[in-house]
Amino acid sequence: MTVWLVGAGPGDPGLITAKGLELVRSCDALVYDRLVSRELVDEAPEDALRIAREELSQNEIDDLLVTLGREGLEVVRLKGGDPFVFGRGGEEAIALVKAGIDVQVVPGVSSIAAVPAAAGIPLTHRGVADRVRIFTGHGSGEHVEGETIVVFMGLQNLPRVVESLLADGVAPGTPAAVVSRGTLPEQEVVVARLHELPQAAAELDGPALVIVGEVVAMRERIVPALRNQLGLLAG
Amino acid sequence: MTVWLVGAGPGDPGLITAKGLELVRSCDALVYDRLVSRELVDEAPEDALRIAREELSQNEIDDLLVTLGREGLEVVRLKGGDPFVFGRGGEEAIALVKAGIDVQVVPGVSSIAAVPAAAGIPLTHRGVADRVRIFTGHGSGEHVEGETIVVFMGLQNLPRVVESLLADGVAPGTPAAVVSRGTLPEQEVVVARLHELPQAAAELDGPALVIVGEVVAMRERIVPALRNQLGLLAG
Repeated sequence: MTVWLVGAGPGDPGLITAKGLELVRSCDALVYDRLVSRELVDEAPEDALRIAREELSQNEIDDLLVTLGREGLEVVRLKGGDPFVFGRGGEEAIALVKAGIDVQVVPGVSSIAAVPAAAGIPLTHRGVADRVRIFTGHGSGEHVEGETIVVFMGLQNLPRVVESLLADGVAPGTPAAVVSRGTLPEQEVVVARLHELPQAAAELDGPALVIVGEVVAMRERIVPALRNQLGLLAG
Repeated sequence: MTVWLVGAGPGDPGLITAKGLELVRSCDALVYDRLVSRELVDEAPEDALRIAREELSQNEIDDLLVTLGREGLEVVRLKGGDPFVFGRGGEEAIALVKAGIDVQVVPGVSSIAAVPAAAGIPLTHRGVADRVRIFTGHGSGEHVEGETIVVFMGLQNLPRVVESLLADGVAPGTPAAVVSRGTLPEQEVVVARLHELPQAAAELDGPALVIVGEVVAMRERIVPALRNQLGLLAG
C-alpha cells in the first residue's frame, strides 16, 4: 500500500534502476508519462492497471495517485528521468503525504548527465569543467569559467536561449550541442559554436537537451571508438 | 572485447541501472571504486577478475583498463554515481580510444539528485526552484533567485564553502542541508540555516553532499510519510 515515485531514466529502457524495474514488475497499478518507453510499460504484470498520464493535468494526477493509494494498491508512478529533477515529483509526494498515503521515491538516471554522455560529452572533465549549471529556458545568471551549461527543454526556444547565454557572458565561439531523443536509437546530435547553434539545430525536433561549454569539444576525442550498441552512443 | 564505463549509482545497490547490473553479471573483469557497494561487486561471475581501484593513481587505472581491454576481456569499470559527473570517466574513455579499444558508457544515477531525494529534498520544485548549480569546493559565481545549489565533496571544507556562498550573495538564512552517506542505511541528514550549517554538521563525516536553497524546506512536507524501506528515505 505504497505509491512509488520511480524514475524511468532518460529514454533507453535499460537505464531504469534495478529497484525501479523490480517495482514495475510487481505493481498493481502503473501510471506513466508520455516519454516513458513502451518496453518499460510492458514490464508491468499483465493484470496491472495501466494509466497513461497524457491528458491529465498535474492536479488530476495528484488526485489519481491519492485515489489509487487509498484503494490499497501498490502503485508505481513512472516518470521520465528523475522524479525530482524538473519532474514535479515533489508536488506528487506532498499531495500523497497530505492524504496520509505512504510514498517512496526511487531516483532515476536524469537526462542531465546521461544525454550528454550518450553523445560522448562528459558533464565535467578535469582541467576543462568542474561546475555545472542547469536550467530551463533562459535567464541563467553570470557565466563562470570552467562551467558546463545544460538547458532543459531549450530547443523550442533556442534563439532566445542562446541570446540569453551570450548576454550572460558566454563567448559566442563556445562549443555547444543539441542532443535530440538522447539515449534512444533515434538520437541525433548537432554540434556548433554557440552563436551558430540555432541555425545548425533548426531541423531537430523532439525532446532535446542543450549543452554549452568546452566539454562539448571533448566529444571528438571520445566518440571515435564508440559503437551504437546500447542505443547509447550514437553520433 | 569492450571496456564498459558503468555508473554504479549513489550507494544503494538497487540504484544501479538494469543494463549496468546485466553487464556486471556477465563481465570477465570488474574494476571498481572504493565507494561501490560490496553487494554489486559480489554480482560479478565467480571466476571474474575483481580489481579494487583503491591504491591506483588515475594514470595507473587508465593503463590497467587498456591492458585488460587488449587481452580481449569484457571489462566493467564500475564507478560511483555517474562516470561523467565528477567521475573522471572522460579521461578513461580518452585513454581507451587512443589505444584503439572499444569503449561504451552506461550512465548511472548521480548523487546530484538521488542524495537530496533520499533526504526528501527535490532538486527543483515548481514555484520554488527551477535551476540548479553544481560544483565542488568553493567559488561558485553569482547567486540567482530560485536556484538550488549542490556542492560535491563540500563537507571537509564546509566553513570555507559556506563563506564563499555568502560572498556570492546567498542569504545567511537560506535553508541548507548536509546529507552524509546518502541512500545508504547509514544515511545522516543535518538541516540548518546556511550560516549555521558548519556548526550543525560538525559531527558528520563520510562522503557527503551539501544542498542549499529553498527546496531544503520542502523536506518538512515530504518526509513525514516516508519510511526507510529502501534505505532511501531515512530522516
